[in-house]
Formats: sequence, structure tokens, C-alpha cells
Amino acid sequence: MPLRAMLPLPLLLAALAVAAAAAGAPRPHPLDPLSAAELIAVRAAVLASPLVPARPLTFHYVGLDEPDKPDVLSYAYGGGGGASRHALPRRAFVIARAGGESHELRVDVANASSPSVLSHAVHRGAGFPTLTLEEQFAAVALPPKHPPFVESVRRRGVDMDDVLCAVFPVGWFGGDGEPRRSRVAKVLCFVAGATANFYARPLEGVTLVVDLDRMAIVGYRDRVAYPVPKAEGTDYRAGKAGPPYAGPAPAPGVVVQPEGRGFHIDGHVVRWANWEFHVGFDMRAGTVISLASVHDADADAGGARRRRQVLYRGFVSEIFVPYMDPVEEWYYRTFLDAGEYGLGLWAFPLQPGGDCPANAAYLDGHYSGQDGRPVEARNMICVFERYSGDVAWRHTEAGFPNQLITEVRPDVSLVARMVVSAGNYDYILDWEFKTSGSIKLVVSLTGLLEVKATAYAHADEVAQDAHGTLVAENTIAVYHDHYVTYHLDLDVDGTNNSFVKNIVTAVVRDADADAAADTPRRSYWTVRREVAEREADGQVDLGGGAPADLVFVNPGKKTRMGNEVGYRVVPGGATAASVLADDDFPQRRAAYCKKQVRVTPYSRSEKWASGLYADQSTGGDGLAAWSERDRAIRGEDIVLWYTVGLHHVPYQEDFPVMPTLSGGLELRPSNFFERNPLLTTMPIGHGRPLVNCSCAGGDSISR
Amino acid sequence: MPLRAMLPLPLLLAALAVAAAAAGAPRPHPLDPLSAAELIAVRAAVLASPLVPARPLTFHYVGLDEPDKPDVLSYAYGGGGGASRHALPRRAFVIARAGGESHELRVDVANASSPSVLSHAVHRGAGFPTLTLEEQFAAVALPPKHPPFVESVRRRGVDMDDVLCAVFPVGWFGGDGEPRRSRVAKVLCFVAGATANFYARPLEGVTLVVDLDRMAIVGYRDRVAYPVPKAEGTDYRAGKAGPPYAGPAPAPGVVVQPEGRGFHIDGHVVRWANWEFHVGFDMRAGTVISLASVHDADADAGGARRRRQVLYRGFVSEIFVPYMDPVEEWYYRTFLDAGEYGLGLWAFPLQPGGDCPANAAYLDGHYSGQDGRPVEARNMICVFERYSGDVAWRHTEAGFPNQLITEVRPDVSLVARMVVSAGNYDYILDWEFKTSGSIKLVVSLTGLLEVKATAYAHADEVAQDAHGTLVAENTIAVYHDHYVTYHLDLDVDGTNNSFVKNIVTAVVRDADADAAADTPRRSYWTVRREVAEREADGQVDLGGGAPADLVFVNPGKKTRMGNEVGYRVVPGGATAASVLADDDFPQRRAAYCKKQVRVTPYSRSEKWASGLYADQSTGGDGLAAWSERDRAIRGEDIVLWYTVGLHHVPYQEDFPVMPTLSGGLELRPSNFFERNPLLTTMPIGHGRPLVNCSCAGGDSISR
Repeated sequence: MPLRAMLPLPLLLAALAVAAAAAGAPRPHPLDPLSAAELIAVRAAVLASPLVPARPLTFHYVGLDEPDKPDVLSYAYGGGGGASRHALPRRAFVIARAGGESHELRVDVANASSPSVLSHAVHRGAGFPTLTLEEQFAAVALPPKHPPFVESVRRRGVDMDDVLCAVFPVGWFGGDGEPRRSRVAKVLCFVAGATANFYARPLEGVTLVVDLDRMAIVGYRDRVAYPVPKAEGTDYRAGKAGPPYAGPAPAPGVVVQPEGRGFHIDGHVVRWANWEFHVGFDMRAGTVISLASVHDADADAGGARRRRQVLYRGFVSEIFVPYMDPVEEWYYRTFLDAGEYGLGLWAFPLQPGGDCPANAAYLDGHYSGQDGRPVEARNMICVFERYSGDVAWRHTEAGFPNQLITEVRPDVSLVARMVVSAGNYDYILDWEFKTSGSIKLVVSLTGLLEVKATAYAHADEVAQDAHGTLVAENTIAVYHDHYVTYHLDLDVDGTNNSFVKNIVTAVVRDADADAAADTPRRSYWTVRREVAEREADGQVDLGGGAPADLVFVNPGKKTRMGNEVGYRVVPGGATAASVLADDDFPQRRAAYCKKQVRVTPYSRSEKWASGLYADQSTGGDGLAAWSERDRAIRGEDIVLWYTVGLHHVPYQEDFPVMPTLSGGLELRPSNFFERNPLLTTMPIGHGRPLVNCSCAGGDSISR
Repeated sequence: MPLRAMLPLPLLLAALAVAAAAAGAPRPHPLDPLSAAELIAVRAAVLASPLVPARPLTFHYVGLDEPDKPDVLSYAYGGGGGASRHALPRRAFVIARAGGESHELRVDVANASSPSVLSHAVHRGAGFPTLTLEEQFAAVALPPKHPPFVESVRRRGVDMDDVLCAVFPVGWFGGDGEPRRSRVAKVLCFVAGATANFYARPLEGVTLVVDLDRMAIVGYRDRVAYPVPKAEGTDYRAGKAGPPYAGPAPAPGVVVQPEGRGFHIDGHVVRWANWEFHVGFDMRAGTVISLASVHDADADAGGARRRRQVLYRGFVSEIFVPYMDPVEEWYYRTFLDAGEYGLGLWAFPLQPGGDCPANAAYLDGHYSGQDGRPVEARNMICVFERYSGDVAWRHTEAGFPNQLITEVRPDVSLVARMVVSAGNYDYILDWEFKTSGSIKLVVSLTGLLEVKATAYAHADEVAQDAHGTLVAENTIAVYHDHYVTYHLDLDVDGTNNSFVKNIVTAVVRDADADAAADTPRRSYWTVRREVAEREADGQVDLGGGAPADLVFVNPGKKTRMGNEVGYRVVPGGATAASVLADDDFPQRRAAYCKKQVRVTPYSRSEKWASGLYADQSTGGDGLAAWSERDRAIRGEDIVLWYTVGLHHVPYQEDFPVMPTLSGGLELRPSNFFERNPLLTTMPIGHGRPLVNCSCAGGDSISR
């Protein structure tokens, strides 16, 4: 392909647009997501670059290529001597497809009116980048024009106008060394018609294969026909679902904050109570929490109130959802929702009053469309103070003869929430900050099941393993797993950390030694403290081995009592690990999910647990592969990877839409503070109850 | 002791009092706790009975001896033909001490003006009943008058006016056959003075032994002196704790319900949304939830809306807290908080606005004092609707080319809460009812650690296993466990239930069989369904074995799709099991805590996991002992016992008072409903947001 002459015009136009937009605009925080103006500049630079002359060129990932960590830390915590915003780079990392290849580019947008490509490389390994929304829309428009499909639809008695399709990644099932595989995906089709829930009405047995680069159907199979499950009972839209709700509804209620919100959002920086953090947005990860630090009420030796580092960066790195039916139409459904689809790309606007309560604030995001132009994504993340009625701490003391002492501090927390609706499933992903210094991460699963059409109309008819639950007539909800993997770069009071297991170790004495013993107790447990030296030591199967507290400590910082400061991981339900065979293809692509806890040394390029190119990946990149190097993790800048796991046996209640099921973890200070950091809090409202509240109803919000 | 002639006078006076009080009062619900009038009647009958002539006679347990289960079910669910209240007995079960023996009496109080003793038995086995509050108050008054103790206090440089003591059960450490052991307890003493937190300042090394029946000191040891930890930094009372809170406080907020509460309390019956349940109060168990049933929006075949049984009775049966230091002053600290102290007895009034939010309602309780007279316990349980900002279910559908569909239903739940402050620890025990049909049980731990005084002032000085964490100077917080065991008599659509394990079972193919296989997938999992036949099958260690969904099903009731209706157990963190040796004495007294899940056939007498007589029990009664009979549990009326467990390694943040740490479980409908029971709910407020809310501050509440 001939080198294309540089076309300065798009670049010039972009420059003018950007300059106009940027005139007077403050320099962004170094970790701010790329703005619309910056995305425009990225696009212009890429399209103008002679390094990638092939056309069409499609943008599959554009995200912030953040500054080096030491510089960010210096900026954020360096005080007067720290780096200023203006010294730090603004760069984008781009994965684009052109000429049948995947291209990686880094673009300097520090000066958005004159961006420049800093580096370029062609990906030579396995796998492909995230699918774009546009190519999926284009791919699902192909089947209705494909004569064999028209016949398949007709044969099933379905009206083509009711048919909808969706794109399913093919995964990888062998053939390690193939140099040039096609970027194909499967397209499966469903029937909407009288229901919005087309996932409940699959055209089972029909599979199309689409070459996304050529945007053409390259494979078709109609293997077997099953009844299309009926529409009745599948719709979840208000008013469509049937008879009214039984029993009285809960009374309406709302949280009222008479003094307004307690948090402040300055650009992308959130300040609330003793917390401060930066919230970003990425098309693959969705919400990115950075530079989370907590104010310590105990002053340091010099009398200064300290802001202490806790979490440098946290985000969901991958969501792996393997299904458990080996049949032709299901064996490959082994989704990597972040790498194949993009969590930010599939986050949709939050519904005020529904997804988030009335006292929430909302943050927008931007992502690149396939053509590189910025798309504004409204209401991606909400932030709200939660008054759950829970207690922060309390004690009633009845030991004094003449008085009953009661001290109670109610709990208020701050929630940052995003919802990803990657096809059928909805993931509500919460970051909850507590004044105790804890950060709770909660994954709440809801949305729609993927179901298989079947001839069975009743469970008694099921003669062999159906690989799922019969949830409705002709409808089997297939067994599957969910693994939500968090990248949590904890920096406990700084980057020099170690991973410690406080192992609960039983000490036991035989009964025949009773007489010689100095205590009547035959057993107790104590703590055997193990510091992980290398990555192999930092992998923990929560379901096996001795119980232990898992702590990220700073070996160079101790409390006044001499304990190493730390934060520990407290699992909160959903601790499943994969039971797939190690050499099974989907397991090889997400090999990390057999150990819920992993620790690696920090590396700026190690972000994506499934590897940089997740679509059709072969497992050679990603969290498990990196850890095979068994690097040192003691007294290093280390990263925690935690996988929330669930073996999902569906039940009828999950159909047609699933009641929320939650699990997660708590990052909890452990000898981080000298004492309970909430000890000095006054009760909320300082003992004045909020009474005499009333509300006037507002107008209906458009839905 | 000569038989005392019956004295009809107290009985007559009681009868008059009761008749006056009861004139016109409605018949209580069969499961209502004994009222003050009924307790008066119980007392009168016991004191007037010639069956227990010895004096003094102390009342250690008085609780409702509930009617037989079939009669209660007939009353509650029998419709027009069901038993009426008036046909059901009102009886009390009493454990009293007199003449050095424990007496069990059943008393009929159906007619409170003429109560009668129905049965009497003397306990011949091991163990003693719950300690009374009064005898503990009396016991802790003894040390200051005991000259060796006066000397020990003086020697430690402590002012006796600052000394407080508390009673600690001695447990059991051998000697199975001793027929007549003394009802002794240990008394340990602490220093208050400048702090309310005397637990933080133990007079370590000093142990008194008190014979509670004789109310005399029968043993004394001052083994070793350690520094008394200083008061500074230990107080948790508002204004005492030190410098002001760092950073801005969270903004005040309150839940406002403009249409008032959505729940109704009629006596002890709570109705809310699709739930109905009875809430009782017992001096040993605290909150008792009974007859919890849920309305099903799907009508039955005859078109009637059904109320379906879920939980016949649920309560916390025991809280076992073994400490892990074998030294003289600690080896026996292996508390059974329900059996030794009484959870209801140690529940104190909830603080409005602190323990429970502004929209809560409160329920009072009654319990018997040591003299049998009723004591009113105010604000024992609160009930409130929680608006946490969480989502009940949602889906965003992006698959339609021309529209984005978003449906969200915010979640509202009902919480019934009690707080038990059994000495140093506070247990917040929540029953959370969800409109999805789930019941979430949450244990939140807070309050004060038990600490050991030590010479160590810094962790570097600790040369050997300290059996705990040095949390402050001279202060070691000893390692310990918490096991909160729930008795959960699930009756899923009736009493005929089975316990099913849906075991996640991997199916694996070797790679060398790939070529002959009909699928590229080498592995998947399926469900192997095991129905527990006998009690041994019904014991599950959540940390071992294959993962499984644990389901209580009704084998006689199926959904229209043919799946057995059920409720499953979803663990929510805190799944520790005991690591003590099986033959260690505390482990023998609470042998059940190695398996978090147990199932037994229903038996009206099997309530207390630690046995009826927990104080100094030897393990021959209770949950583990009953289950050794390995009774049939398939297609029976069965009971779930679930233990929430935590290995507590203390950290400095837990001192001087601990930030709340939570764990528990969810009882979740599993093929109980034909489909998501919330499908037909309208969004809260029917799309009308609640805006323009404001509150005027109220007067300070007295504290």
C-alpha cells in the first residue's frame, strides 16, 4: 500500500477546533480521562500519521496513557516541591485496526492543537482488540440479508421484522501458532416481537460467522431447530409484566440532606469526609479510582495532619463469564467482557432515582467511536452519600452499678457507582468509601440470563444433563460462572509494600500430655506470619489451605506500638474459583481465576488480566502469564488482584430478569491507624435529630 | 428443709393484679412473649407450688413454652378452619435454682389469674442455667471487701474506688462424672477511673472464684503483677476521646417518608410489603422471628393470592467466643453468650438516631428478674425501612437499533434490629426482609476488645508468642473467635422439606481425546444433585469440599416448570470454622462450630445449640450431641443451623472501640417463585421523584 501523503487539513481543522475549545481551559489533572478536545486531537494525529497509511482505519481503544507513577505521586503528594500539572505529559494510547493489522500508537496531546504520534508498533502476537460498537451494529445488520438465514427464520415461523441479532466473540480453541487468523465473531439471533427481552427467545441452532474486517458473512450453520420460547412472561418493561404487585408496596422514602451534600467534586477529584480520590473513566475498565488517600486525625510528629496514601489505582480489569454447555452453539461462550466488549463502552446512562438515589451527583465520560470521534457518555458514574441506618461503632456499658453508658455513631458512607450492561447482564459496580478508612468493593449482578431454547416444556421431560435449569417452557438457563477481577494498586503509606499472610495456626496438645501441661487448654490458635517473597507466594486460594488474614503492609512504617501499617482484604461472599481444566481453552485465556487473590509487582503495562488483546487471545499475555516470572514482591511496589467469583446455577427467580445478587470485598485498615479513626467523631447532627421533614412531589421525570 | 405451707396470699394478690390488668385485654398471639401480667402469674405459681419448697428460689430463665407446632401452624395458616387463639395454650418454661438444684417447671398461664404448674423436674445432668443479672451484680460487689484483693489493688497502686469487676463463667475442663459440682464463676477486676473503658485496664493476674449459690468468695489468686494500662486513649465517650475529627464530617442526612411508614405492627405481628412475620423476645435468644410468610403475586390455580410459608422460627441460638491464650487468667474464657449470659438479658435500649434511623419504630420486651418479677426492657428491637440506594433489579437494553431501553427498580428493605452488649462486645443482629423474598441475616461486631495487661510497651519487645496484638502500651488484645449460630426452622411452603446440595461438578476430558470429541471444550461443570438422607449428610464445611448451592426444598411442591420449590443459603463473608482440637474442652462444649451448616429434624426441645444448661456444660447436650443420632432429614420437618464465624486477629483500629465488621447470610428463594417476584413492581413513587424536601431541626434528645 503506497504511503499516503500527509494531509494537513484535518489536522489543521482539528487544531483550530481544539484551540478554540481549549482557550482558557485549565490544565487537566494528570489522570483525567482524555477530554473531547484531546480525543479529537488524537484522532487527527493518528489519521495524519504516515505510520499507518492503510484505510479504513478503525479505533478500537483510546485511553489515557498515564504519566509515570513516580511523577504522578510527586504531583499528588509531593507538596510544594512536587511536580506541577504542567510538567506532566498528556498522552493517549491507541489501538487501531488498519490493513488487517492491529496498531499500537502513543500520541502526545499535551498541546491539543499540535498533537504528535510518539510511537507506533504493529501487534504480531495472537488476539485482537476490543470490538467497536459500530462494527457490532453493522454485523448484526447482515443476517436479514443472508438468504440461508431468511430461510431458517421462515422455517421457524418467525417474522423477520421481529428478529434481532448480537455479536459473540469466538474465543480460541486451539492452533497456537497461526500467524494470521481472521478477526471473526459469531452472530446469534433472537426474536423480540411482543417482548423487549429477545435474549429469552433465541433462534437456537442458528450460527453465523462474520469476518469483522471484511464485514461479511463467512460462515453459516442451521444445525437443529427448537421451538422459539414464547414472548409471554419474558418482558421486564413497566406495565408489560402482568398483574399488579401483591401486597402493599413499600412506602416511598428519600434521603434528605438539609445542609446539602457533604462531598465536593472538583473536576474529577472527589473530596468527602476524610477521603480524597480521583475518579476517571476508561472505555475498557469503566470507573478508575486513583490517588485515594485518607486524612489521619492523629497528627504526625511535627503536628501536621497527614494525608496518607491508600490506593494508587483501582479498576475492574476483567469480567470473565464462561458458560457450561459444550454444545455447538454454546461451547465458545466464554466472555471477557472488559477486553472483548469494553466495560466503559457498555456502561449506559444511570437512571436518577432508580440506579442512584435523589442525593446523587453524576459524572459524564467520553470514549472514542470507531472513527475516532469523541462520543459523550452522560451519567456514567454517580456519587452519593449513603445513609443506610447502619452503625459505625457503638458500645453500651452496663458494668457501672449506677449508670448505663451508651455511645453510638451512625454510619455514613460515600458510594461511587457505575453500571455496565454488556449485552444481557447488568453489573452494578460500587466503590464504597467509609469514614473508618475502609473501601468496600461490591459487585451486584442483575439483568437477563442467557438461555437456550429446548423442546422441553417441563422438568420431568429432561432425560439427560441439560446443562442448566428449565426456567420457563422451552427455556433452559445455562450454568455459568462470573469472575470479576479487580486491579488494586494499594500503596499503603507509600509504594514500599509487602504482602503478609497472618495464618491462623492451631497449636494442639494430646490429651495424654494433660498432666504435664501448665494449662487445662488442649488447643488454641496463634498467628504465623508469612511474608510473600515472590509471586508464587502471593497467590491465594480462599477456599483452600489454612485461614489467614491477608494484609498489604508497609515494612518501612510502623505504628507507635511497632506494628507494621497495613490494609487487609476481607472477602464478602462470592469467593468461587474456576473448576475448569487447566488446559481447557477458556481457562487458559483467563488462567488467573483459580486463585482469588494474586499479587504482582507494579508495572505500568500490566493492566489487563486477560492480556492487551483479549478477543481470540491464547493466554500468552495477562495476569497469569506475567506471574509465571515469579518476580519478587517483598518490599516492592506491589499490586493486589482480587477476583470476585460466583458459580451461577440459575433459578426461576432469575427469569426473566434477575433480582440483584451481591458479593465483593472490603479493604480494611489494619494497624494503619494508631487507633479507631472514628473515635473522635461526634454523633451525626451533634445530638440534634432531624425532625419535621416534608417533601412536595415533583414532576414526572421523562423515562 | 421443711415443706412450706402453701401461702395463697401472694397467689391471690397476683390473681387480683392480673385480673385487673387483663380485663378486656385481647388474647395474645400464641407466640407472643410472656407479658408482664403473665410473668407475674408465673412467679406466683412457682412460689406457691409445693414442688419446689426450698428457699431462696431464683429465676434463671422464664420464657414462652410455645404451643405445639402443628397447632401454631393451624392457627396461622389454617384459614377459617384453623385453631383460634383461644384454643391454644399459654405456658411458660421456667428454670429456677433452689436448694442447690436446677428445677424445670412448666406453668399454665392461659388464665393469668389462676396459673398452675403443669410439670416439674430436677436437672440431674451437668451444667447450670443462665446467670442472673442480680447475682452478677452481687458477685462483683464482693472483691472490695476481700482483704487479699484489697492488698492486690494497693500493691498495684490503684484506688479501690476506681475498681470494677465482672463475672466470667468458668467453663468446664474435665471431670465428666462429677455429680455435684459447685456453681462457681470467676470474677475479674478492672480499673475505670479516668475512663469508662475499664476493659482496657485489667488488673491482670488477679482471679477470684465466687460460689454463686452461696454468694461467697471461695478462691483467690494473685499470680503475677503487670502494669495497669493507662487510661489515656481508652475512653470512647463523646468529648473524651481527644482532638476533633479530621477533615469535614459527612453531611447530615435522614430518610424521609412523606407518606409515613410502609409497615404496620399489630401487637407483635409485622406486616410490610409482601412479608408478614411475628417478632418475639426471649431472655436467652433475644429477637425471635416466627411465622414469616411471603405473599405471592402469582395466584394459585383457584385464583387466590397466596401467603406462603418461609420461616417458622428463627433466632440466634448461641454466640461462642473462645479466646486463644492458654495462660491461667485466660484459658477458660470460652464464652457462650446466649446460654451463660442471655442475649435478651444483655440487650439494652436502642438509641434512636444512632442505633436505628429516624424512621424506625421500637418494640419493648419483658424478662424475669431473679426474683421472678417482670422487668420492662424498653426499645429492645427496632423496625425500619431501609433506603440504601441499592437496586432491586435493572436492565439496560442496547440491542435495539433505534432505542435504548432502561428499566430500574430501586430497593427498599425492612430491617428488624437488636443489639446485644454482653459485657465488652456489642453484637448488632439484623434481620433484613427484601421484597425479592430474601431474608438477609447480618451480624455486625463492634464494642470493646478483651485485653491482657503486659509489661510490653512496644512490639519489638515481644520475644515470644503473645497470643494477641499489642494494640497500646502494656495492652495485648488476645486472639479469639466469634461463632454466631442461628436456629432457622425454614418451612418452605410447608413442613415437608429436604436438604439438597446442588454440587458444582467438573466434567473434564483429556486433551488426547480432543480428536474424537464432538466439542472443542475440554471441560465444563454441571450440577450433581444430592439429597441429604440423614443428619451426617446435612453437615457442611463451607471451606472444604466441592462448591455447592445448599437448598431447603419442598419435595412435594413444584413450580409449573417442575422444579422443586426451595430457598437456598448464600453465605456472605465470615465463614470461619473452629480449628480447636476436637477433644479440647471448649470445643466439646460447642462441637457444632466446625461445620457452618447443619440440618436436624425439628424437635420442640432442640433450641439451644450449647444445650439447655450451658454454664459449665460438658457437651452432652446441644446441637452436636443431637446430631449424633444421625436422624433422617429427607422429606421431614427440618431445621437449618447456620454459624457465622470469624477468626479475630485484633488490630489497633479495633482499640479502644471497634469499627463495625459485618458478616452473615442470605436466605434466597430458589425456584420458590415461578419467576422474579419483583417483575410486576412499579418503580418507587411511580416515576414521581420526591423533591423539595426540607427539615427543621428538633430539640436535643436526652442521652
